[in-house]
Amino acid sequence: MTSREFTITQEAIDRMTPKDERFGQVMTSLIRHLHDFIRDVQLTEEEWMTAIQFLTKAGQTCTDKRQEFILLSDTLGVSILVDAINNRLPEGATEQTVLGPYYWEGAPHKPMGANIAEGIVGEPCLYSGIVTSLDGKPIEGATLDIWSGDGEGNYDMQLGSDEMRARAVLTTGKDGKFWFWSVKPSFYPVPSDGPVGAMLDAMGRHPNRPGHMHFILRAPGHKTIVTHIFPSDSPYLDTDTVFGVKDGLIVDYIRHEPGTTPTGDTKTVPYHTCHYDFQLAPVSDVEKLKSA
Amino acid sequence: MTSREFTITQEAIDRMTPKDERFGQVMTSLIRHLHDFIRDVQLTEEEWMTAIQFLTKAGQTCTDKRQEFILLSDTLGVSILVDAINNRLPEGATEQTVLGPYYWEGAPHKPMGANIAEGIVGEPCLYSGIVTSLDGKPIEGATLDIWSGDGEGNYDMQLGSDEMRARAVLTTGKDGKFWFWSVKPSFYPVPSDGPVGAMLDAMGRHPNRPGHMHFILRAPGHKTIVTHIFPSDSPYLDTDTVFGVKDGLIVDYIRHEPGTTPTGDTKTVPYHTCHYDFQLAPVSDVEKLKSA
Repeated sequence: MTSREFTITQEAIDRMTPKDERFGQVMTSLIRHLHDFIRDVQLTEEEWMTAIQFLTKAGQTCTDKRQEFILLSDTLGVSILVDAINNRLPEGATEQTVLGPYYWEGAPHKPMGANIAEGIVGEPCLYSGIVTSLDGKPIEGATLDIWSGDGEGNYDMQLGSDEMRARAVLTTGKDGKFWFWSVKPSFYPVPSDGPVGAMLDAMGRHPNRPGHMHFILRAPGHKTIVTHIFPSDSPYLDTDTVFGVKDGLIVDYIRHEPGTTPTGDTKTVPYHTCHYDFQLAPVSDVEKLKSA
Repeated sequence: MTSREFTITQEAIDRMTPKDERFGQVMTSLIRHLHDFIRDVQLTEEEWMTAIQFLTKAGQTCTDKRQEFILLSDTLGVSILVDAINNRLPEGATEQTVLGPYYWEGAPHKPMGANIAEGIVGEPCLYSGIVTSLDGKPIEGATLDIWSGDGEGNYDMQLGSDEMRARAVLTTGKDGKFWFWSVKPSFYPVPSDGPVGAMLDAMGRHPNRPGHMHFILRAPGHKTIVTHIFPSDSPYLDTDTVFGVKDGLIVDYIRHEPGTTPTGDTKTVPYHTCHYDFQLAPVSDVEKLKSA
């Protein structure tokens, strides 16, 4: 009688006659792994009901500004795993990390050197660097889509702002160089008042991410890169709750006393400088890795 | 660089310091199997986003009268698997099957022989049988919590009724016998206008369940049983979309021409009789299986 415990898996798989071969492949593997998990832990009926209620609440926590299932994926290490599988890059290329839930499409194009952090709190920071191809040649016409939270860890959309803050798109010139003023971003907790927050708590995990500045880099002929850079003195670098930190993305922010800055203006408060260079992989190199 | 594809799983597991040991055990296995699934199929970023959107929509399809995640669990064979793991029964005991989403607690207690199908469509059927212990001894004071859809496959709550229809609780006397009038239930589709319906369609599966009469049997000193019986001539017995059919639960409904019935009343329309005996396992026997 108990043999159904073992036969049900193949029965469920055999029931499918999928129109799309890939869909069938994905669902076959999903059913197999899901059933194996349940047998593995001998899931009780109470635990099953807890899972049903967790998933239901997660769905009902989602709004147009909050995605609890992406947060679940992030905190279980699924997002960074999917990223790793799909974005194998050649040695030397700037690494990717998670997109995160705070990307807002359509940031304003600004001139090189702009201060993109007007109206937000935080210590000023001058970001600079160069965008090159893997062979070190500067890339003209690369765009940097930039966003971050403020110096207290809040993004514009979290503060109820309908206007974008600390977001801009910059385009490199012939020398591939970029520079702009923003703030040094602070660590912050992911939204933890929902079911994922309760899960993290039960796991004995904190909900924090180290401070970071987001970038999407796009350049003709090169693979688009979604990434962050992290201040090397931020807390939670070792325990980012979404597993987004990679060694190559950690960078020193240098603190300066008030005075004349490298861009010639005068700051009456302490400020930071942060230098980071991006290396983009030519599409042809990436394609080679895919078929390898 | 791509080694993160493999190291992230242990990293996510090691991050936990759960307060509850069992929770840690379940989440460790979940993370391992979930990551294995993703690596196994090399899930693409588009597929990941489809999954996020599917889960979100499933959560938002749930209401107080509809549970899309239970439906998902049912249609992936998960519910019957969890049932099989948690309800190992001794040889000879009546088998369990899924509860389904249409159970409504608090059905009215009715006298033996009652017609519980007043006000609903369908061909009348006289149900009868005996509730015994595994040794064949009749059980006095066993309750049968009974419910079904009508002869067209609709449950009262689906028809927008605030009043219960085709539901009752009966209690056996000394002889353990039960009998009542209801209808012969029809096959019906599970709710298929939501994300699970779309999934079934993509799998090339129909959304139908064969007709069935639900029972929860409770008796002092015996394991409570949640089950159905299925008319042997119902369509979809071989392909119940929630995998609920078991051979021992299929029963012949005998059709009779209008006339005097075994309970002495006269039917002016054709009617059916259905005989089924329930064998309940003593709690002590079930405990032995658990610890085995």
